[in-house]
Formats: sequence, C-alpha cells, structure tokens
Amino acid sequence: MAKVAVIIDDMFEDSEYTQPAEAFNKGGHQLVHIGLKEGAEVKGKKEGTSVKIEKSVSEANPRDYDALLIPGGYSPDHLRVDKDAVNFAKKFMEDNKPVFSICHGAQLLITAKALEGRKATGWKSIIQDIKYAGAEYLDKEVVEDGNLVTSRHPGDLPAFIEACLKKL
Amino acid sequence: MAKVAVIIDDMFEDSEYTQPAEAFNKGGHQLVHIGLKEGAEVKGKKEGTSVKIEKSVSEANPRDYDALLIPGGYSPDHLRVDKDAVNFAKKFMEDNKPVFSICHGAQLLITAKALEGRKATGWKSIIQDIKYAGAEYLDKEVVEDGNLVTSRHPGDLPAFIEACLKKL
Repeated sequence: MAKVAVIIDDMFEDSEYTQPAEAFNKGGHQLVHIGLKEGAEVKGKKEGTSVKIEKSVSEANPRDYDALLIPGGYSPDHLRVDKDAVNFAKKFMEDNKPVFSICHGAQLLITAKALEGRKATGWKSIIQDIKYAGAEYLDKEVVEDGNLVTSRHPGDLPAFIEACLKKL
Repeated sequence: MAKVAVIIDDMFEDSEYTQPAEAFNKGGHQLVHIGLKEGAEVKGKKEGTSVKIEKSVSEANPRDYDALLIPGGYSPDHLRVDKDAVNFAKKFMEDNKPVFSICHGAQLLITAKALEGRKATGWKSIIQDIKYAGAEYLDKEVVEDGNLVTSRHPGDLPAFIEACLKKL
C-alpha cells in the first residue's frame, strides 16, 4: 500500500481532489495532505470542500512518500510561488516516483522545470505554457509518460484515477 | 485622447482594473470593456467590483482601439482559452499599439505567443512561464519595452499607471 502526498491550497478544483482521494483510500492507500501551513484549512473553489493541512511543505520530506497528487483549480497557482512546494514536486520527478497532475496541476511542474522533454496534458488555458516548458502537449484524457500521469479536467477523472491506481 | 480596450472576465484583480480605469478616465481617455459575452457582468476577485461587458471580443475589431489594458487576477486564465481573445491581444502586439499588462495579464500574451524576445514582468507565480515564453523576465515595478508596459502586482500600480499614461 502506498503513501501518497497531496499538495494542495485554497481554490482547488473540488472533484480533482475528492474523487482521486476516495479511490486511493478505497484501494487501501494512505493520503497525507501537504500545504503551505500545517493546521490550515484549505477550501475547494466550487463546492467549498474543506481539507486540513497535515504537514507544511517546508517540513515535509519527499522521501517519506511514494507518490504525489497535484489537484487543479487555482491551488497550483498559489503553490508555485513557494520555493519549498516547487522543490517538493521537483524531487518526485527527479526520483522517478509517480506524479499525478490534473488540470492546472502542471503549472507546479512547469515552475519546477520538470516537464522538459516529457509528454503531458493539462487544462486548456495552460496548453501554451506546457509547450513552452519543453513538453509535448497531447489532447488526451490521460497521458502516461513514465512516472508522470496527467489529465485535462474533471471529465477525465475516471481515466485519470484508473491510470493513477495502476502506478500505486 | 485615446480609446482603450479593457479585456476582462470574472475574478479580475479589482484594483488592477479600477485604478488604471480611474486614471485613464481622468486623463480624458475612453475605456471600452471587452469580454467573452456582450452584456455580461463580470466581477472582481476580492471586492466584487462589477464591470459590464460592452462588446464581445468576437465582435470587437482591434483597429477601433488605440491601446489595450489587461488587468490580472484569474481573468486572464479565463480569457486565454478563447481564441478570439487571444487573437485580439495578439493584434495589438503585432500592430505595435500600447499594451498594458499587470500581474497575471501576461498569461494572455503568452498564449498569443507575443512575448518572444521581449522584456516583461508579471506576478511571481508566472515568472517561469514568462521565461519559457521567450521573454526576459525583470523583477521591476514596471518594465517598458517599446509598446509593452508590464507590472508585477497591485503594489506597482502607481508606476504602472504613470508609464501607461505616457503611452496614451
């Protein structure tokens, strides 16, 4: 069973957290919610889903986790200004551990310069960002490239979750 | 006196619209509010400032305007998925007309591939996007490069507005 770090902040896309989280829990995997401030409660953008941050990213060690989930919404825009959050995500990519990114999630990987030479997808507003970041952008419900699993939007969640579970 | 197109959608950063708008009006310039749907009311992210869209971007002709203002917040993330909005902004850059972009505004210019070879600044979350887009990123309150005036955040508004007014 895997220990999955969820890196998350306010205005995350609710379903892009709740649906993978439910599926990972059902599969017997453990989720640890990591954010900018331990103890803070962060909220979803549309439904106001509340998530308690269990560990500050400045204190979290990537070695303690088997995989990383990056839900979308405007959460990645907040996280990518934090050097610790960027380095945290970067380490999973460098260590070739499973990284699951949906929607705007790829923004965090762009700031980490972790998409160069990779195949990826993401929300349509960031297509040009993904291309400029040196990735091959694919308009598919799920793109699997080694350790990296990416999807475009909530409509892709069934395919995204299935691909993620296979990596855990 | 100049006719300034303001391209704007929901969740714009209130002050990045209200303060330039007030200064442009005071200077005798005309503002036309352009968005995704004529007649729609779009709202600011923090203060709920309401802006009525006077013209749909699909109907708007860049030739009718002397300059373009792109306020930040999450408005540019919405606008950059719309091909007409992207082409509208692109045309001002191609025609060398004044373009004023603050905060996340540069995202629209990135999708328009209009930052290649330019000097620019923007909100810290998009620094790597700006660099990958082929621009030289400068951490300054205002960056002037030919027709293009860019700033980082609301704290830069006095310098931004001063630089914009000089171009009108």
